[in-house]
Parts: sequence; structure tokens; C-alpha cells
Amino acid sequence: MEKLRYAMVGGGRGAFIGGVHRQAMALDGQMQLVAGALSSNPDKALASGRELGLADDRNHPSWQALLDDELRRPAAERIDFVSIVTPNHLHYPVARAFAAAGIDVVCDKPLVHTSEQARDLIAAAGKTGVVFAVTYNYTGYPLVRQARHMVASGQLGEIRKVVVEYHQGWLSTLLEGTGNPQADWRTDPARSGIAGSIGDIGSHAENLAATITGLEIEALCADLATFVPGRRLDDDGSVLLRYRNGARGVLLASQIAAGCENDLRIRVFGSQGSLSWRQEDPNRLLHAPLDAPQRILTRNGPSLCPAALKAARLPAGHPEAFLEAFANLYAGVAEAIRARREGRPLAPLEGDFPRLADGARGVRFIERTVESARSEVKWVLY
Amino acid sequence: MEKLRYAMVGGGRGAFIGGVHRQAMALDGQMQLVAGALSSNPDKALASGRELGLADDRNHPSWQALLDDELRRPAAERIDFVSIVTPNHLHYPVARAFAAAGIDVVCDKPLVHTSEQARDLIAAAGKTGVVFAVTYNYTGYPLVRQARHMVASGQLGEIRKVVVEYHQGWLSTLLEGTGNPQADWRTDPARSGIAGSIGDIGSHAENLAATITGLEIEALCADLATFVPGRRLDDDGSVLLRYRNGARGVLLASQIAAGCENDLRIRVFGSQGSLSWRQEDPNRLLHAPLDAPQRILTRNGPSLCPAALKAARLPAGHPEAFLEAFANLYAGVAEAIRARREGRPLAPLEGDFPRLADGARGVRFIERTVESARSEVKWVLY
Amino acid sequence: MEKLRYAMVGGGRGAFIGGVHRQAMALDGQMQLVAGALSSNPDKALASGRELGLADDRNHPSWQALLDDELRRPAAERIDFVSIVTPNHLHYPVARAFAAAGIDVVCDKPLVHTSEQARDLIAAAGKTGVVFAVTYNYTGYPLVRQARHMVASGQLGEIRKVVVEYHQGWLSTLLEGTGNPQADWRTDPARSGIAGSIGDIGSHAENLAATITGLEIEALCADLATFVPGRRLDDDGSVLLRYRNGARGVLLASQIAAGCENDLRIRVFGSQGSLSWRQEDPNRLLHAPLDAPQRILTRNGPSLCPAALKAARLPAGHPEAFLEAFANLYAGVAEAIRARREGRPLAPLEGDFPRLADGARGVRFIERTVESARSEVKWVLY
Amino acid sequence: MEKLRYAMVGGGRGAFIGGVHRQAMALDGQMQLVAGALSSNPDKALASGRELGLADDRNHPSWQALLDDELRRPAAERIDFVSIVTPNHLHYPVARAFAAAGIDVVCDKPLVHTSEQARDLIAAAGKTGVVFAVTYNYTGYPLVRQARHMVASGQLGEIRKVVVEYHQGWLSTLLEGTGNPQADWRTDPARSGIAGSIGDIGSHAENLAATITGLEIEALCADLATFVPGRRLDDDGSVLLRYRNGARGVLLASQIAAGCENDLRIRVFGSQGSLSWRQEDPNRLLHAPLDAPQRILTRNGPSLCPAALKAARLPAGHPEAFLEAFANLYAGVAEAIRARREGRPLAPLEGDFPRLADGARGVRFIERTVESARSEVKWVLY
Repeated sequence: MEKLRYAMVGGGRGAFIGGVHRQAMALDGQMQLVAGALSSNPDKALASGRELGLADDRNHPSWQALLDDELRRPAAERIDFVSIVTPNHLHYPVARAFAAAGIDVVCDKPLVHTSEQARDLIAAAGKTGVVFAVTYNYTGYPLVRQARHMVASGQLGEIRKVVVEYHQGWLSTLLEGTGNPQADWRTDPARSGIAGSIGDIGSHAENLAATITGLEIEALCADLATFVPGRRLDDDGSVLLRYRNGARGVLLASQIAAGCENDLRIRVFGSQGSLSWRQEDPNRLLHAPLDAPQRILTRNGPSLCPAALKAARLPAGHPEAFLEAFANLYAGVAEAIRARREGRPLAPLEGDFPRLADGARGVRFIERTVESARSEVKWVLY
Repeated sequence: MEKLRYAMVGGGRGAFIGGVHRQAMALDGQMQLVAGALSSNPDKALASGRELGLADDRNHPSWQALLDDELRRPAAERIDFVSIVTPNHLHYPVARAFAAAGIDVVCDKPLVHTSEQARDLIAAAGKTGVVFAVTYNYTGYPLVRQARHMVASGQLGEIRKVVVEYHQGWLSTLLEGTGNPQADWRTDPARSGIAGSIGDIGSHAENLAATITGLEIEALCADLATFVPGRRLDDDGSVLLRYRNGARGVLLASQIAAGCENDLRIRVFGSQGSLSWRQEDPNRLLHAPLDAPQRILTRNGPSLCPAALKAARLPAGHPEAFLEAFANLYAGVAEAIRARREGRPLAPLEGDFPRLADGARGVRFIERTVESARSEVKWVLY
Repeated sequence: MEKLRYAMVGGGRGAFIGGVHRQAMALDGQMQLVAGALSSNPDKALASGRELGLADDRNHPSWQALLDDELRRPAAERIDFVSIVTPNHLHYPVARAFAAAGIDVVCDKPLVHTSEQARDLIAAAGKTGVVFAVTYNYTGYPLVRQARHMVASGQLGEIRKVVVEYHQGWLSTLLEGTGNPQADWRTDPARSGIAGSIGDIGSHAENLAATITGLEIEALCADLATFVPGRRLDDDGSVLLRYRNGARGVLLASQIAAGCENDLRIRVFGSQGSLSWRQEDPNRLLHAPLDAPQRILTRNGPSLCPAALKAARLPAGHPEAFLEAFANLYAGVAEAIRARREGRPLAPLEGDFPRLADGARGVRFIERTVESARSEVKWVLY
Repeated sequence: MEKLRYAMVGGGRGAFIGGVHRQAMALDGQMQLVAGALSSNPDKALASGRELGLADDRNHPSWQALLDDELRRPAAERIDFVSIVTPNHLHYPVARAFAAAGIDVVCDKPLVHTSEQARDLIAAAGKTGVVFAVTYNYTGYPLVRQARHMVASGQLGEIRKVVVEYHQGWLSTLLEGTGNPQADWRTDPARSGIAGSIGDIGSHAENLAATITGLEIEALCADLATFVPGRRLDDDGSVLLRYRNGARGVLLASQIAAGCENDLRIRVFGSQGSLSWRQEDPNRLLHAPLDAPQRILTRNGPSLCPAALKAARLPAGHPEAFLEAFANLYAGVAEAIRARREGRPLAPLEGDFPRLADGARGVRFIERTVESARSEVKWVLY
């Protein structure tokens, strides 16, 4: 099978997530980096591209130059998709331009800064019909897909309570301004958006809960705090959720949780049982049926659904982790792109990745959470 | 050392917590049950007392008869204290009467139904100067005392975030009305009070957080739900907390958390590190210093404070659990009663148990939480 | 129900296990200490007895004096049983004398020093028909009984492999001679016997494996080591086991396992599944059925056998631990003593505790292990 | 940096480990598959090569044809190394031929069938000076390298006891003959060698212990069993070890451990502390200093050594797993190959992978273990 050709926007020297995207793609060998505009700093962009082995004529100082060049090339040479891994504020212009040009897009989260931008992007992508993925990467874990299946198939009964938490401790001190580029842009309203922790990681938590449970938020009530003096955005957030089906939820996101590394967890309680999963221990899913012993489901172990089995590469007990989960999103993207090229619908289990609607919902979550945090009214409608 | 003589009110046949109190007391051999009014049903009271080996003249059909009898007896025969283990609605009249009569009191939680009752009880106890303990038993765990010490001594820096959770699943179905006496009274407003889960177990969570952190709640925002049709009180609650020092908190209490047994947990995040403890795994306390590997403190293991060491009976690795923690409260009560008898102040580390002020604060927590749950205003002042 | 009266031999000031026995007995309130010879040092014996509230005429300077006194008393006053908690070398003479006198006996482990002593003791006890319990206390854990049930009822299929380990680290340095009485006698051949770790804790491991699996050892191959210079007995042992049914086993016992507290674990692998249990986390039993997800059985939780349920006091999630397990042995002893008094056979589930045959088998295990450790022949027949 | 070109021998359709090698190499993008002889079945070899996108003239029906072709090519086209991922019996002829021809080799474990073969291979490789790696992949885990560092730097003091275990349950039934190619060859003496479990996974355990501790085995005592009727090699093994420094060890390897997936664990006890690591939970290393609380070291977390940090790609809390560990071996191979090309010595931390000496030691371990299992003498000298 021929490799898909892609360009990357962002992800040059000193960036974190761009390299993760590239390694995730490398894992399955389905994609090939052929072009790029790897930084908003032209010199850094070109230097980074050279390091990654880009040909000079496909190594660009800006995403606009990249797009122009692509559109000039014959279809046979053109990239199959663009992967956008810039800080948040660039997602919108870049994604919009490529989508409008008919080029398939993978874009990091949170999708854009405002719901207005999200709507515009959805409209633009709708016109060209491009494949558009948003890399809420944690949904690529096989056992997240198993959890989604168990809820959807009714194994937990009616969902009553969702507790989703994302705790990190790396921003316990004023890391921004010390030369840490990650801390810099993620705490800068101009680049990160109106929210800090709640946008950076709370949005992952929102997506994880939505993906697994399928529940829709009806209203929320948020408390955001900034603990580190000098910080410009929230570094801690707690949100009460009310879902349309009557379930209640709690979403916690904190980057001042000293001692936590990347502690994303979810518990889902239903009338017939519950599930518990933790990103740092991703190869196990705890399932407690009502009035029976708890079971430990393992990745690629017994009793898994087809979607979970499909997402596993290695036998049970040979752990897979973050990169493999990330790669599962790209594997789904590859399926969707190929199907689009071939003009055929996706087969069952194909194309399993978050889409524009997920991204737009995530933007709305951030907006509503910030609105609620500023409000004296208890419940902000979603 | 002579044993302290006590009477028990409540805790007869079919009761749960009364037997726990008796076993906890038996463990250290410092106390002797000599009298009782073990049920509000006179026949059951007397039959229960006979089963427990009470002499006929100290086995009473009602708590009033018990009190009358005690007051008639010479001091040398009289009980040293009363242990009140009835359903909640009886705490107030019984505790008030004994305290007013100058008899030391151990009373189960939540203390009473209203803050007004609490104030009255405090006034009554203040006049006689009785020892008064409220059995928030989870604070008796050695590693809870270690956690309290670590916060108080500044090892976590300034506390920023508290997450305390109490999940049970035993009320996932309409257990009341099926012959389960525990479910019956705990879901009955007349006996349990204005709150269900938030009163029964949320109050333990409140007390645990307050005991460990010493923080005072400034305002709260609660969402209470009743998921099981036919139930009369809340069976699930989530509360956002704002503390006076600026810290934020989240308190969860649910009895419809299918698959959970008695899952009380707390995490405390400070500017210099964090702590994590779980009641179901009580012999380990996780301590994560900022930017250093996490440490596992163990009961009676290295690096513990005197209060934690004092509360342990067995060498590390020989696990202690629920009853021992409960017994630690009674051990502190014994110290306080003996000190009062001897007219001396408590020595350092003596008398380590929750008192009336803890009980009153717990009642206020329940009141404010229920008030908040019914309010459209976001923050209810505490 | 009237309390059983008991005397204790050993367990005075500075002892460890005597207090544990007393607390375990206190827990269920079925037993009352009425007499004792609490140390082999007469002054210490008497002082210890006074501290424990013994009447002067039942507080003895020696076990012989205790026995003489008991035999002189009318039956109505006499002790129901004796609890022997001395260092090992005194088990034989004391137990033999009381058993020969027709007094029921609870004796700590290892039972005696030699198989010859064990045979003699069995003969003596056989003549009088006394109840005789050996306090391999770890078998009192409810989930150990559950494990025993699952093996016996065939849920694991044919047992193939047993891995039982007991790791402690407290003897990593030459603690004997520093004033630690526990270290002193446990490393002294005259008091401890021919084995150190393998006798002190290896015997617990042997008993746990035998109790759960019911398998009989056919041959063994041992390696014992003494790592700490100056120590007189082994402080580390590893033993390969061959069972009569063809199963293989591995038994590890070490007291120089730095960092381990009291880490007794067992895994049992059968043709249809496996079990795993750990003493430091005693309220969970892992069961892995062949080709199905692992299950976590919890104390007093769903799916337990009657023997396991009987051995639990508190609801699931309210942890029980070491003392409760110990108390379960005494609860069984109480049943057996009462049944003997009443001249009736034990009812089903009654009298669940290790007996002389277990003790004798444990002695043989120590003998054979030491013999094997000194031998150049690979397999020593059991 | 230009990619290294490699050929693969074995690893075609239906194989397991070949794909793992390719994914591991893909992860870091340093290597490119350009040639192959992917099966001993010529048709399958060619079909597999086509699937993997090999050019026709570099897709060979046999490893001999591959080698001939490579030797005919100009240096600029030639492969940089060969990766040998066949069943065990082919390791020797293939590795010997390529090494003798001066081509760098990566070879799966166990290296060869006999120590004689190993010596011959070492001689052949010595003559040409090729880089030769043996893929004991578990040593690629960052925290294994941390453990190695902690032992080597004396943080555990003198090592006294090593317990290394590798439990799998997948061969609990007679899987061979049911169409499972992995079970087929791994239980076939002609392809697997003289040992079953002890060769397939016991050799990993041996290597892990040797890598971490650096200890040399002096003598061993083994018990091997075959539990599943019809099986031709051992499926369970237990080995006692004596090390030259006086330390003792226990090595367990079983493939009938029902319920276990890929449960490789090691505990190392020294005079100053201990370490514990588990492959299924690879991002945590437990360190228990003598008389201080246990610490949890995490991958890429605080307090790690340079070799462990170098082996991590992602921030702490973003778990890495099996493939990344495997890739770390190949990363070291790449460094060694490039250094050889450039005629320079390896820089510090470069070239961190198991070599021929490790492979040869592993072969000797298998031979001695099988010899011991058949012997009546207790200790077989190593």
C-alpha cells in the first residue's frame, strides 16, 4: 500500500507535540513527511525542515508558502493531508485555508479559539468535503474504545455519574519565562486562548468523557483558579456537569497538582455497573458489574470488542502506550483519506477518530466553562 | 489500669455500627459495657442487652430510663461515659441529656440535625465540661494523622487544592423497603435528616478534609441528585469548595457508585507537594514532593510523626484497618476521660479525637450543601 | 454466652506476639485472661501479670506453677485453655504438660523443635483428646479461606505450580545484640531451633500453601544462606518443591529483603486458572480464570464461599486485617472448645484453625529444608 | 542523518516478532528496510517482501540468495546491517554467514542452540569486527537502565538476593498443532532448541538479572516440568542460582501460568535497599532504601541517571512501553554502526544494547539449566 504523503505545519525545533505526531505516524509506516512549514519563525522553519530531511523545494518558511506550493503541484506530487501542530492560535487560519483548498486536515486540539471560528471551519470543510481529524489522542487507546463500547451496548445500564480528572503538576511553579517554550505558549492568552488548564487538558477530559459515554452536557458550573502568582490564565479548574439524560458529572483539570505527571482518569457509573480507566496505566480497564466481582479487562486480552481489538498491535501483556494510541488516530485518518480517494464509504470500524464536531464541542466547552467561572449564576446552559 | 465503664444507647440487634463501636473498644481492653438502652423498641432493647450480658438492673428499655438509673447510682458504680450509636435523629436529645447531666459522651456522626441543635448542645456541654467525642472514625487511621502532620508542618507548602471523595455503590438499587434496616433509616428524612449521601458519607469526607488540612470552607456550590426512583433523599452529591486561604476543593459523595465498596479517598495538593490516601488501602500514604520521586509512607514504617506512630499497634507490614482506626478514637477518649477525672490537662498527643466543634461544623456543612443544591446562586457562604 | 477463661504462658513485657494474641481474643469478646505465667523470668512474669490485671493467686512465676495451680482448682474455676506464646524452645514442654493434663491448648508456631517432639505431643494430646490449635495466623484471613475453597472445589482445575513467598527486611543488619528481644531469640539456635528465616517465616509460607492447595510435598531442594556477618542462623532461604500430584512449587523466605515489611504472598496456578493473594493487601484476592478477564474478589464482597463470609466481620470496603485474621483462629478454637465441653461434634464451618497435624508437618518442613540445604543430593524426600 | 539500510531474515506473514522489530525501527526513523528473505518458505518469502514494499531485485527466496546479492552490490547500495528474526535454529547459520561477510548483525534471542555455536560465532564476528546485537529487548526499558545504574553505583549496597520471574499463561493448553505458528515452533525441539519455556522466556529473565545486577552465576539447580500432555519441551521451570559474589537468586519461567500475560518481574535485594520492576507496568521502578520510605521512580521523572533519561522519548506520565524499549536497542545499534563506519569509538551512553557475550551467556544458561534438570547432583557449575 502506498504511503500517504503529508506536510506538517509547526512542530519544529523545541516543539513537543510535533515530534509525537511524527513518531506516531512512523509507527505504522503508512505516512511519509514530504513537506512542511515547521515554525512561524522562517529561519527556524527551514532549519527544522532540513533536519527532518525535507527536500529544499518542499521546505517552507511559512504555512502560506507551503499551501501555495502544494496547490501549484500536480496531484500526483501533492500532499495527501496536512498535520497542524502549532500553538492553538494558528489552528484556525491554517486549518481553514487547507480545508478550503480541499486538502485533508489533521489538527491538534483545542480546535480553534471561538465557536464562531469553529462554525466557519465546519462550513469551509463542508464545502470541500475534506477529511478533518482533531487529535484528541487519548481516545485512541484500545481500552477507551472498549469502554465506549460497553457504555453504548448497555453493559453499564443507564449512566448516572461521570467523574473525569486530568491532573498535572508541571506548572506548580512559574515555569513560563524560564525558557520552557511549552509553558510559555500554553500560559499565554494570545496563543493558548481564553483558558489555561481547562483548555489545554480540560478539553481532553471533556472529549474523553463525551467519547466514552456519548452523553451531552446540558449545563455546567465551573470554578477556575490561578494559583501561581504572575500566571495569566487559569491553572486549576473544577466543573460540575449536568447531562441531558439526567446524569451528573464532575470534570477536574489542574496543572498545579504537584506530584502528578499526566494523570488523566475517568470513572463512569451506571445503574448496572461502572468502569474506571487511567491513562498512566492504559492497558487495564476496570469493570465492576453491579453485585459481582470487579473484572480487569486488558488490552488485547479476553472479552474485548472488535474496535478495541483492532486498535491493539501487540499481544496482551506486551504493553502499548501513548504513541500507539496516537497512532491509532492516524490509522483511522489513513482509512478515511483512502476511502475518500476511492470514493467509497468507510467500512465498519474504519475511520475511528475525533472529527470537527468533537473539536467544535470542545471549543464550546472551553467557552462555557470560562463564562461560568466568571458568572454568579450557578448553571450556565451549554 | 481500671477499665472505664460505659453504657450504650442504640446498637441492638440488627444494627451495624453499634457492634463496630463495641469491637473497637474491646480491642484495647480499656472499656467495659455495663449498661445500655440498646434500641428504641423496648423489647428489642432488653433482649439485645441480655445477649450482650448486661445485668438486668442495668439493661433498660429506653435511654431515659438508663439516664435516670445512672443518676441514682453512687459515683463508684456509675458509668464513665455513654456511647450513642442510634440513628441520627436521636443523637440530639440523648447527647444533650447526658451531657447536661455531666456524663461524658461519645456520639456518632452526623452530630445532630440542625446547627441550632448543635449550638444548644455545645452550650449544654460547656456548662458541665464533659468530654464529648464525635466518631468521625476515619480520622483515627494512623496515616491520616501523618497526613495532618505533614500539612501542619508545612511539608506540602501552601495548600491549593483538595479533592476528597467517598463512593459507595450499595444504594444503587432501592434497597430501602427490602428489609435492610441500614438502608431504611439512612434514606428516611425523619431519621437521617435533610440529606442522604451527603449526610451519611459526605460528612465523613468533609471531616477528613478538615482534619487533614485544617482549612476552613468559605463558600460552597453543590449539586445533589436522587437517581433511584422512589428514594426520598439524595443518593449522589458533588460540591465545589472555596477555602478561606484561597484553596479550592471538590467533595464527592455518592451511594450509587456501582462497584464501589467504601471508597473514601483524599488528595491534597500544595505548592511543595501532594498527599494521597485511600481508606480501602489504609496502610499506605503517598507523598509526592515537588520535583522528587513519590514516596510511600507506611503505617509504623520509617519517617512517621509521633501521632501516627502512637496510633499504630502492629509492626509495619502487619496491616491494621477499620476497627483499629475506630479504636484509636476511643483510646483518645479514654485519655481525655481519665485526665478529666484526675483534673489534669491532656498531655501532648493525648485526646486525639473529633469533638463537638467538628460535629457542629459537619452539621453546618450538610445544611449549607442542601441549601446550595436548592439555590440558583452559585456560591453559598459557609 | 459465657466467656472462656484462659491462661497465657509467655507474652510478658517486651514480647511482641503475646499482645497480639490478647488483642485478637479481645476483639470478639469470647475470652477472658484469668491466669498466666508471662515470662520465663519470674520477676518479669509477675510484674507483667500485674500489669494485665491478673489476680495475685493466678499470676505465676513459672508455667509449672501455673499448671500445678490450675490442677488444684475446682473445674468451675479452672481455665478453659492455655495460650502458649513463648519463644519456640518452650512450646514443647509447656504444650505437652498442659495437653497431657487435659487442658486445651493454643500454641504458637513452629510447633516444636523436632519431629520426634511433634510425634510425642500428638500422642499425648491424643490420649486426653484436647483441642489443640497452632496459630498459623495467616490462614485466618477470609480470602485465604476463599482461596482454599476455590482450589478444593476445582475452580482452578488441577494445580500445577505454587509460588509462595515471605519477604521481610527487618534483619538486614545485625539487629540481634542491639537490645531488640525479637531479633535476639529468633536468631538464637537454642531458642529458635535449627532454622532462622525458614523456621520463623518459611513455616508460615509452607502452611499457607498447604492450607490453600491441600497438596502434599513429596521432595524438596533448598538453599539457605546467612548474609549478615555474625548471624547464627539462616536469614534467607529458597526452596524448590515437588508435590505428590506432580505440581511444582517454589517457597521463598527471607528476612534480609531490604524494603519489605511483612510481604507474604502466594500464587497458585492450575490448569483452569490462577489465584494471587498478598498478606499486606489482604482484602483482595485475584482470580484469573483461563481465557477470561481477571476478577478481584473482595472480603465480604460478592461470590464468596460460606467459610470466607463467616470469617468477615465488617461490610466489604471496611478493611479488616491482621488482628481480625488472628481472631478468626481463636473464634474457631472457641467453637471447638465449646463443642468438646458439650460433647458434640463440630458443625459445618466450625473449628476452622490449624491443628497438631499442621504443626507437625511444619516441623518436618523445617527439618527437611535444613537437611536439604546441607546436602549435595538434589532432592530430599519429604 | 541518512537512514541505515537493513535487510530482514525471517519475519514474514504469520510471524510475530519480525513485525515488532520493524515497528520498533520505524519509531525513530533511523532505519529503512531495503532487502529481505522473509521466510524459509520461498513463496512466502517473496509474497511477504512484496507486501512490505521491497523492490523485486532485493526480495529474496532465501537468506543465502540475499547474502549473495548483497555481496555483489557496490558498497553504496549495500545494506548496513541484517536483522535476523527467524525461529531459533536459523540464528546460527544466518548470523555466522553475515558476520563472516563483514555485515553488521542484529539477531533475536536465544542466540544459538549450543555454546559451541556461540564460540564459533564469536570467533567469526571477531575476525570481521562487525557490530553484533542480540535483542534481549527488555533491557531497552529506561527504568531497567536506571536499575542497572543504581546497582552499579552502589545505591543498593552489596547485592544479596535476586528474584526474577517470567510468567505467561498462553501455553496452558496444547496450543501447538491448533494452527498457532508461534506455539508450533516454540515447542518444537528442532526449531526452538533443547528448552521450551526456559529458553523462550527464561533466557530473557537471565539476561534481565545479569544486565541489572552484573552478577555472574557460579552454579545453578533447576527443576523443569512439562505439564501439558503431548508437549515436547518444558513449559515450566524454577532455578536456584548461586552467584560468584555470594548472592543467591531464584529464576522462574513458566508458560502454563494461567492468567498471566507477559509477567516479567525482577526484585533485587541489597544490603542497603532493594529494587522492584515489572514489565507490564514499565514506567515505574520501586526503590526501597534501607530504613526509609519506598520511592517510586518514574520514566523521565526526577532523579534518573543519564542512561535512563536518554532512553525516554516522552515526558513523564505519557507512558512508553514495549515498542519504545525495543526501539532503544536499535537506537544503540544505529550508534554503534555509525561509529564503526566513521572509525570512531562509541561515546559515553552510546551503543547500549546486549552483545554477543550476552547471547553466549544466555546459551550457556539454557544448557546448564537443562543439564541440571536432568541431574541428581544438586549444583551444576556454570
